[in-house]
Amino acid sequence: MRIALAQINPTVGDLDGNAAKIIDYAERAHAQGADLVVFPELCVTGYPPLDLLESEAFIDAVEASCSHIAEKVPGDIGILIGAPIRNNNKVGKRLFNAALLYEGGALHSETRKQLLPTYDVFDEYRYFEPGDCSEPVEFRGLKLGIHVCEDMWNNEEQVEFHLYGDNPIDALAAAGAELYVNISASPFAVGKHVHRNKIVAESCREHNLPFVLVNTVGANTEIIFDGDSRVHAADGSRIVCAPSFEEALMIWDTADTATRCPMQHDDVVDLHDSIVMGIRDYFSKTGAFSKALIGLSGGIDSAVTCALAVTALGPERVVGVTLPSKYSSGGSVDDSDLLARNLGIDFSRISIEPAVDAFETMLEQSFEGTTPGIAEENIQARTRGVTLMALSNKFNYLLLTTGNKSEMSVGYATLYGDMNGGLAVLSDVYKTDVYRLAEFVNQRAGRELIPRNTIDKPPSAELRPDQKDTDSLPPYEVLDRILKLYIEDQKEWRTIVNMTGYDADVVIRFLNLVDRNEYKRRQAPPGLRVSKKAFGIGRRVPIVMRWKRTKDQPVIQND
Amino acid sequence: MRIALAQINPTVGDLDGNAAKIIDYAERAHAQGADLVVFPELCVTGYPPLDLLESEAFIDAVEASCSHIAEKVPGDIGILIGAPIRNNNKVGKRLFNAALLYEGGALHSETRKQLLPTYDVFDEYRYFEPGDCSEPVEFRGLKLGIHVCEDMWNNEEQVEFHLYGDNPIDALAAAGAELYVNISASPFAVGKHVHRNKIVAESCREHNLPFVLVNTVGANTEIIFDGDSRVHAADGSRIVCAPSFEEALMIWDTADTATRCPMQHDDVVDLHDSIVMGIRDYFSKTGAFSKALIGLSGGIDSAVTCALAVTALGPERVVGVTLPSKYSSGGSVDDSDLLARNLGIDFSRISIEPAVDAFETMLEQSFEGTTPGIAEENIQARTRGVTLMALSNKFNYLLLTTGNKSEMSVGYATLYGDMNGGLAVLSDVYKTDVYRLAEFVNQRAGRELIPRNTIDKPPSAELRPDQKDTDSLPPYEVLDRILKLYIEDQKEWRTIVNMTGYDADVVIRFLNLVDRNEYKRRQAPPGLRVSKKAFGIGRRVPIVMRWKRTKDQPVIQND
Repeated sequence: MRIALAQINPTVGDLDGNAAKIIDYAERAHAQGADLVVFPELCVTGYPPLDLLESEAFIDAVEASCSHIAEKVPGDIGILIGAPIRNNNKVGKRLFNAALLYEGGALHSETRKQLLPTYDVFDEYRYFEPGDCSEPVEFRGLKLGIHVCEDMWNNEEQVEFHLYGDNPIDALAAAGAELYVNISASPFAVGKHVHRNKIVAESCREHNLPFVLVNTVGANTEIIFDGDSRVHAADGSRIVCAPSFEEALMIWDTADTATRCPMQHDDVVDLHDSIVMGIRDYFSKTGAFSKALIGLSGGIDSAVTCALAVTALGPERVVGVTLPSKYSSGGSVDDSDLLARNLGIDFSRISIEPAVDAFETMLEQSFEGTTPGIAEENIQARTRGVTLMALSNKFNYLLLTTGNKSEMSVGYATLYGDMNGGLAVLSDVYKTDVYRLAEFVNQRAGRELIPRNTIDKPPSAELRPDQKDTDSLPPYEVLDRILKLYIEDQKEWRTIVNMTGYDADVVIRFLNLVDRNEYKRRQAPPGLRVSKKAFGIGRRVPIVMRWKRTKDQPVIQND
Repeated sequence: MRIALAQINPTVGDLDGNAAKIIDYAERAHAQGADLVVFPELCVTGYPPLDLLESEAFIDAVEASCSHIAEKVPGDIGILIGAPIRNNNKVGKRLFNAALLYEGGALHSETRKQLLPTYDVFDEYRYFEPGDCSEPVEFRGLKLGIHVCEDMWNNEEQVEFHLYGDNPIDALAAAGAELYVNISASPFAVGKHVHRNKIVAESCREHNLPFVLVNTVGANTEIIFDGDSRVHAADGSRIVCAPSFEEALMIWDTADTATRCPMQHDDVVDLHDSIVMGIRDYFSKTGAFSKALIGLSGGIDSAVTCALAVTALGPERVVGVTLPSKYSSGGSVDDSDLLARNLGIDFSRISIEPAVDAFETMLEQSFEGTTPGIAEENIQARTRGVTLMALSNKFNYLLLTTGNKSEMSVGYATLYGDMNGGLAVLSDVYKTDVYRLAEFVNQRAGRELIPRNTIDKPPSAELRPDQKDTDSLPPYEVLDRILKLYIEDQKEWRTIVNMTGYDADVVIRFLNLVDRNEYKRRQAPPGLRVSKKAFGIGRRVPIVMRWKRTKDQPVIQND
């Protein structure tokens, strides 16, 4: 049997566009002699559809779309698609998350997702009732162990704490499945492919079954899917692998168990490519903008954001503006100018002094007798924000925000100032990784696209004379290590102190600082998620709250 | 037996403060001869603790706090508190949401919540494993049917679609419970008390059992709890009722089945009191601000916001600033001035012209040849936003945002402009209800605190000459009716057209407009939730998405 893996990039809510794409891929698979073409989880709606799932009109349209797809694809190919379907019992959540197999215009089988991720960015139990134990589906003489995404992830032997009591893929094997078929919308995080590879290979070996996994690709707002679809033979070795971060149609003949497909991944390359896709998809899927706009400070964050935007959209659709104040170093403007010339983008310079002066005059009376400080620094950042948004509004530019994860963690950013924008490009990338990205951009270009001076100079917000980031923050190597252990690995301060040897007071201070700055992040634009724990919808921290770590808190089961 | 209902206002994460409050109330209940004092759901942590629940250090501290409370309360009173407890099985979510009964310093019983709300603002399945079927707990000879919040809400006979298969309170009655005891963190919405009353009364009558319900009170960020704790006799009649929107300790002697406690609620009064409590709690629980700051436009929204802030915080902690431009009518400044004098607050005037002019000069070259429009209007709103934030930063003022739900629905607001602020006071109140609040404020004051001219003049953003809201929007009576049916009642356009007789094109246009403006709301400050469906964490709509209603979409099961 020939099975096609259709790794497509659906757009959330674009039922017509997604259906057209599904039909197109099915026709291409058919032309290549496939018996069965497999699409990702919820490919009909795009993932995550969120509360669109609560609209009856939307679900009506989804049902119509599934029927339309089933009718339009060639009659002699099986097509496995993912869609929400109604729960016709009068108990439980109103929908199931289903894998629907159609053949000859008719529904051949329906498999309901059993394990519903409800953690991090996932809210599936908000919408879906868990399915009952599934039986394998016989299709052209082969018993397919069809299941949906999370259904395969409860299988790891070494997990200490299992989120679910059931293991659907064990049950499928016990019921006689001859081949696993997983349809997924499994988000990207740097390094995730290693985990995915391991769990699939182990599942194969455990039951001596081959495994087809089709994952969605593309970005929908903040969530990025890498694709990374694959086939593993019964011995666990990979025999087909789709490229990451692009659509693909791969064909596997079940008779082929000999091909080998080695893993080729590099964390910085993945980080780069995922962000580029994230920018491109935000821009093209909204379809609302003429160009992308970036405020260039001469610093590393805006330079990297700009270089990635140029890769995503082309230099003709990227505009850079530098907005110097009296505290900007001459080098900052020169570095921005050089960057813009290197990238071949439209570039202009608007001094913010007139508006900053005007605000100072307007506030003279109110501020009388006070010492200049944060308020005055923020006026500069906000004047830049207003200017950039004026250009955005006037010319329909998508303003890209350039703040990195280290800054967003500790609140080293101005709300309604440099945080302005439609999409935060680097808000899930620590400062130390921004440097890695910069080096990679230059290395891949074979020249210093990002000026060496931008990379080498000490980071500064340039909001007061001779300001340096290290005036307020530890060196980024130290800060990022603390932050990563806290945010991604969810370690507590005692563990972090034990692992790093850093001073307990420093660690406690920065963990509390992260918590306290949630109010800024709540109003931040959506940011591309490239780690296993990003700020935003996957990390829900109360704003009004008084939890604060102290040295004398009790230890019972800490970490 | 004497049972005390301790309707307290905990702060999220304030383990020490909440414990002190619990101990204080237990002592007061003891002094009044109570055998048992009942506290709300998750009163140890405050509700909702959100992802604090994922921190092992936090759960350690919660355990220590529970032990501390059990030790400190008088030995001869039972104390029923709500707290997260660890799931010591190695399967499932890591916590249970529990009701813990302590007596004499020892744990008497532990009851786990069975039904975990995971919809709207609730994410309980993100954190908690559902508890198994509970047995009644015998305490001083009485079999208590202890259960937690949602466990009582699956009981309504007339609900067509049951979210859960189980009905814990039926099971408790069948197992011999003699008295229901429900501990809740059940959020307020206008009219919610009617629903609560009905379901409790019906549950009583169904099993001929009395019912004690203790609900939390207070606001934590956007979520408001009204309290409304009560005791119903076995025949369903209310015999004890706590006040709404304030802490209370009520004592009920189980021998008393004769007292009657009629319902006294008015929607506008509840709306008013809930918002006042929301402002007060945001201010006092963050403890971060010296005063509240409001930009006064002379319009109804800022006037009502200001009046409510004065009621919440006192005139000495409220500051009003009017920020006129050349498009502001003279009346606007006069109305603001009069309002400030009526309320007795500090008031100043800062013309935004200097900064607006400066931005126009700065952008002259970039904007050359374009027609003035939204970009220029937004510069005015954003100049006001920067000025207000400068005052906020300089003097530690909490900037209150004044936009109403009608505007937030359709995006009639400027991001980084009038949307700036720490708390959105009216973002869940439709414009027509803002007028009702204004009339109520004046009526209660016995004089026109809010100037009559502010109430009577046609609403305008005053961002261009002679602008009126009705230039872009239908009359608010029409718009609000459409919005309410769509947002709160989750009706689709066909149903709305059938119910209202409005033109289908208009209804479709505004429903799509609500969806399209999600990107603005994502960056809005948290807003006080006073309806059953507010924008924010309870309404999760994708930003990048292409779902759009059209007249020719299929109908299968629409509404």
